[in-house]
Amino acid sequence: MTTIERHAPGPVAPEALEQLFTGARTHNGWLPKDVPDSLLELAVDYAKWGPTSANCSPMRIVFVRSPEAKARLAPAMSDANRPKTIAAPATAIVGYDLDFPESLPHLYPATDARSWFVGNEKLIEETAFRNGSLQGAYLLLALRAVGLDCGPMSGFDRAKVDAEFFQGTRIRSNFLINIGYGDPAKLYPRGPRLAYEEIATIL
Amino acid sequence: MTTIERHAPGPVAPEALEQLFTGARTHNGWLPKDVPDSLLELAVDYAKWGPTSANCSPMRIVFVRSPEAKARLAPAMSDANRPKTIAAPATAIVGYDLDFPESLPHLYPATDARSWFVGNEKLIEETAFRNGSLQGAYLLLALRAVGLDCGPMSGFDRAKVDAEFFQGTRIRSNFLINIGYGDPAKLYPRGPRLAYEEIATIL
Repeated sequence: MTTIERHAPGPVAPEALEQLFTGARTHNGWLPKDVPDSLLELAVDYAKWGPTSANCSPMRIVFVRSPEAKARLAPAMSDANRPKTIAAPATAIVGYDLDFPESLPHLYPATDARSWFVGNEKLIEETAFRNGSLQGAYLLLALRAVGLDCGPMSGFDRAKVDAEFFQGTRIRSNFLINIGYGDPAKLYPRGPRLAYEEIATIL
Repeated sequence: MTTIERHAPGPVAPEALEQLFTGARTHNGWLPKDVPDSLLELAVDYAKWGPTSANCSPMRIVFVRSPEAKARLAPAMSDANRPKTIAAPATAIVGYDLDFPESLPHLYPATDARSWFVGNEKLIEETAFRNGSLQGAYLLLALRAVGLDCGPMSGFDRAKVDAEFFQGTRIRSNFLINIGYGDPAKLYPRGPRLAYEEIATIL
């Protein structure tokens, strides 16, 4: 077995590209179909393999499912986002842990990566925000990959969510994802995207 | 055709999950196999469909390919990252445009979203960094999905890259991705990941 033969030979199946990218939509309404906890766990188990800087892996997630937990989340939602969040089978609070350097001796044993961050709160915050956001995107695509639909949102009160769900920790909320089986009847028209030439240049 | 029937019925193929998540690695060495520009463009065309807040789509990319462009990038790289970056068939400078609000009337015509950002530089920076990072992760997984390997990096001098490639704009570099067909012989041992229970909670 040569190295060339071991390499993935080409693109994933067209159905996967459609499910992950071209055919996937941000959902606002949800079909009455149960989402098992095991499917959420499976998506996390895929997403965690996505790369982060020095394997720092700062993402932390609370899946808000029970009526009691939804009631704690509701006051932090913007008016536009509250009803669909209450209605969603699950809502992921995607956060990042500013204490992530404490895990680096385990996650990145090759060098003393924890020492890079000592006394440098700006670097901690930037690293946690960048890599926690990358991991949030891995999670979103992993949720789609296991067959679920997503409705990501930035419209909520971060301070309220942090006080309610992350009190006494250094975890900070980043964005939210409503999760379930989307109702196509409640989709908004799809927004346009920038043209390739507006996004990228090859030098 | 009912809405239920139209919905994706389950997970993508196991081969796709392996190619995107469980089997993919951060590469440091590159096989002598050409990467056509068309494959980079294809990855951008998939990645652009990933969701962003108010469809703000702040990611901007420079694909550094030519020896001349690589020579401009080299002085900004950390010593550890320079040789593999020079050797990679392509290096993506993944940035975000702080002028993204100017595109909102086109991208999000439903409301006057541009006005949310007027005079609020902190919100502009936070929104660009979060959503530009999400889009960077979409790009990374799209590159893998079209059959390429990635080597993402944070170890470089942002100010130097911005001065060299984004002078006169409000685009800021975020992270870099070396791109090509990875040489498995040059992989490092895979780092561990946190356990599910350390990442997520279901309430």
